Amino acid sequence: MRALVLLWVVFGLAACGQEAGSGASEKNPEAETTEEAVAMTVRGPGQIVAEAVAEEWVTPDPERILYIDVPQGRIVVLMSADLAPNHVAQVQTLAREGYYDGLHFYRVIEGFVAQGGDAKGEKPKGSAKDSLKAEFTDQWHDDLSFTPLGNPDGYADMAGYINGFPAGRDLDDGEIWLAHCTGAFAFGRDTPRDSASTEFYITLQPQRYLDRNLTVFGRVIWGMEHVQAIPRGKPGNGGVIEDEERWTEISSIRLAADLPEAERLNLELLDTNSDSFKDLILARRNRPEDFFYYRPDYLDLCQLALPVRLKEE
Amino acid sequence: MRALVLLWVVFGLAACGQEAGSGASEKNPEAETTEEAVAMTVRGPGQIVAEAVAEEWVTPDPERILYIDVPQGRIVVLMSADLAPNHVAQVQTLAREGYYDGLHFYRVIEGFVAQGGDAKGEKPKGSAKDSLKAEFTDQWHDDLSFTPLGNPDGYADMAGYINGFPAGRDLDDGEIWLAHCTGAFAFGRDTPRDSASTEFYITLQPQRYLDRNLTVFGRVIWGMEHVQAIPRGKPGNGGVIEDEERWTEISSIRLAADLPEAERLNLELLDTNSDSFKDLILARRNRPEDFFYYRPDYLDLCQLALPVRLKEE
Repeated sequence: MRALVLLWVVFGLAACGQEAGSGASEKNPEAETTEEAVAMTVRGPGQIVAEAVAEEWVTPDPERILYIDVPQGRIVVLMSADLAPNHVAQVQTLAREGYYDGLHFYRVIEGFVAQGGDAKGEKPKGSAKDSLKAEFTDQWHDDLSFTPLGNPDGYADMAGYINGFPAGRDLDDGEIWLAHCTGAFAFGRDTPRDSASTEFYITLQPQRYLDRNLTVFGRVIWGMEHVQAIPRGKPGNGGVIEDEERWTEISSIRLAADLPEAERLNLELLDTNSDSFKDLILARRNRPEDFFYYRPDYLDLCQLALPVRLKEE
Repeated sequence: MRALVLLWVVFGLAACGQEAGSGASEKNPEAETTEEAVAMTVRGPGQIVAEAVAEEWVTPDPERILYIDVPQGRIVVLMSADLAPNHVAQVQTLAREGYYDGLHFYRVIEGFVAQGGDAKGEKPKGSAKDSLKAEFTDQWHDDLSFTPLGNPDGYADMAGYINGFPAGRDLDDGEIWLAHCTGAFAFGRDTPRDSASTEFYITLQPQRYLDRNLTVFGRVIWGMEHVQAIPRGKPGNGGVIEDEERWTEISSIRLAADLPEAERLNLELLDTNSDSFKDLILARRNRPEDFFYYRPDYLDLCQLALPVRLKEE
């Protein structure tokens, strides 16, 4: 029996240990060249992540980690420590008071979002606020740690990463915001800007046109495949699933901090301020491996996955 | 009597679920303005698609439609009529000879691709070719119908749409290629450029860095939620699912042309050369609805979903 056919193993994080044979420093002789040499690392993304030193991995604050449990599995959301503090506090309150337990993902649109919360709008909100002042953007200040993407972005004057999150900056008015890449965790709202309250959504694909129009304050860092497996609604109904039997029940949303340590997932994130992450940006912009015949010298903000690993005791 | 089920309108209509009442033509008084007025349609994306006239919808050639049947449901792939003719012919041969029937999706990486074919490399290829000359790009010629995106793109000199497909063009060397947006259908390969044969993949997220490195020759136009629901492998193993029990069986891949008409899905696509599609580009670049407080005057090539509808008799 022949071994599994393994073709073009090229994904950044997933490629750890899979790029055997492609680590040679000699470039592909057939690769296209340009007049200007492209900036390129010698190491591929998989190697960079594998060789990141212990100090470059960060353990997120359990007060900022949400576990969303659905029949498909556990979805882990990291909430921002820098931006949108009132939205973060609202979800912390809602999670602590068990507000979401037994509610549903009831509006799920393929390629767009999975929206969860109280479809019927009947559940008391406890000590959470009825409406939140929009936090679409925040003001840049020098205490923020920002790693630039290093190439143009269509939706922002400057794009990059702020402590684990893809983000945009407006250099004229000093605004900074978290970007709607895949797995963005945000609150929905009605037309008035300050109308968000409890309904949240997770983007299934990048939707950058929503940037600066809604408050993104978290991202899925684990279990995105469970979000992708949630049954979709029919577009004709705006994605709202009419048959309640097909809603996906949220058994609970909890803060990691509220679970005994033994029940938490020990996740570590590659620090987006680290040298390895900066190398990763370069390696994703121009992949050095022989497999690549064309190198674009460009990286889309949403196409760099955050390296996350499960630390097993 | 026939009814039309409209799909994907939601990308246009419903940003966050709660856009009811946002159809008023008066612009949001709080919306940000710039020195230069942005080019904007009066109609939102949903309205544009709903009002597209019958002549703007095209019925794809059943010789270019693949039905990929998996336990999750039917995945429908449209193959290009313009580019990569040898890859299209190869899949037509393989489908006609039942090559894929009983094979599997066995390498599936969250956020990256679902790869299908013969994991063990044992199945005879019948009259299909053992290897294909790469068709990463084709040469632009004036018979091609291309609708420009109309704003810069990081991965191509010019981006736009060619008969239903997102595509890039190099204005120096005249190359044109189909882009790795979500749902791109392509052949994998080993490191030599001409090594593709039967293994295919479907992108689960945009992966534009693969553009011009592999041959994209189709896209999923229906049932992408079924692709998203296929069980993933573990990253440590390059996404290859070790436990064969967890592979997803492909019961068959067939050309629509080879099924009786009564068993085909009557799908129609909005013609990407039509005026309505051009209006849709503008409306997605700057959403006119009151819901939007910020308008980016930019559209990412991969963030415009192709309007597809099921014509029910």
